[in-house]
Amino acid sequence: MVPYNSENIFAKILSGEANCIAVYEDEFTLAFMDIMPQTDGHTLVIPKEPAETLFELSEEGLGACTRTLKTVATAVQSAFECPGVMIAQLNGSVAGQTVPHFHFHIIPRYADGSSVRAHGHKMEDTEKLQGFAERIRACL
Amino acid sequence: MVPYNSENIFAKILSGEANCIAVYEDEFTLAFMDIMPQTDGHTLVIPKEPAETLFELSEEGLGACTRTLKTVATAVQSAFECPGVMIAQLNGSVAGQTVPHFHFHIIPRYADGSSVRAHGHKMEDTEKLQGFAERIRACL
Repeated sequence: MVPYNSENIFAKILSGEANCIAVYEDEFTLAFMDIMPQTDGHTLVIPKEPAETLFELSEEGLGACTRTLKTVATAVQSAFECPGVMIAQLNGSVAGQTVPHFHFHIIPRYADGSSVRAHGHKMEDTEKLQGFAERIRACL
Repeated sequence: MVPYNSENIFAKILSGEANCIAVYEDEFTLAFMDIMPQTDGHTLVIPKEPAETLFELSEEGLGACTRTLKTVATAVQSAFECPGVMIAQLNGSVAGQTVPHFHFHIIPRYADGSSVRAHGHKMEDTEKLQGFAERIRACL
């Protein structure tokens, strides 16, 4: 178990040093668009608590993230009218975790069989992401 | 949204009509070995509440599942000494959900680069799964 590294991009988003396209925020959590989405509408939920993985996150922090997960995933499903939603939460680089701050992925799945793109691969157009975020916020 | 179908295999495990290799149980949740594991140690967490997806599960049921998820995932990580753990929760058949009862997947990931097998593909040997379950229970 390594100590939390506050130089990661999500810590910088939480401190205001870096930007994000937010869709939801409360006292304990923040939800925003993944900038390298695996499908259209791919959204992340993070705790404000500094925790790298599920194993370090407090019970309160996990409870808050899970409530936000359900709220935002429901809005994503409505906004994109997607018949499926995949939730993923990766712990450790061998599991595919790329940012060392706990996060849930909300990944819409579509009936047309459109495939899931590689994780953290291709940067999406910012205006397109802003449009997606507006659609999600309208469903919250 | 279709009504909950109590003929699914997890409902039958909960009612005692079908067997499972359990590792943990409390008033609201049950955790047991996936019989078609994607990696060694693949474990499932389900609510006792009849709910098909994240969208139907009550806040209380989700909170209980999440607490069990953390408890069991921590034990799985200790039991298998795996450097990574992938959590997945699939909603809808287009997202890969194969049993219409809410479940979290706990999928150990190993440093040797061993790959993740296809979801719900090959039945594992029961004795091997019983040995894995004993290792997890010993870490709870």
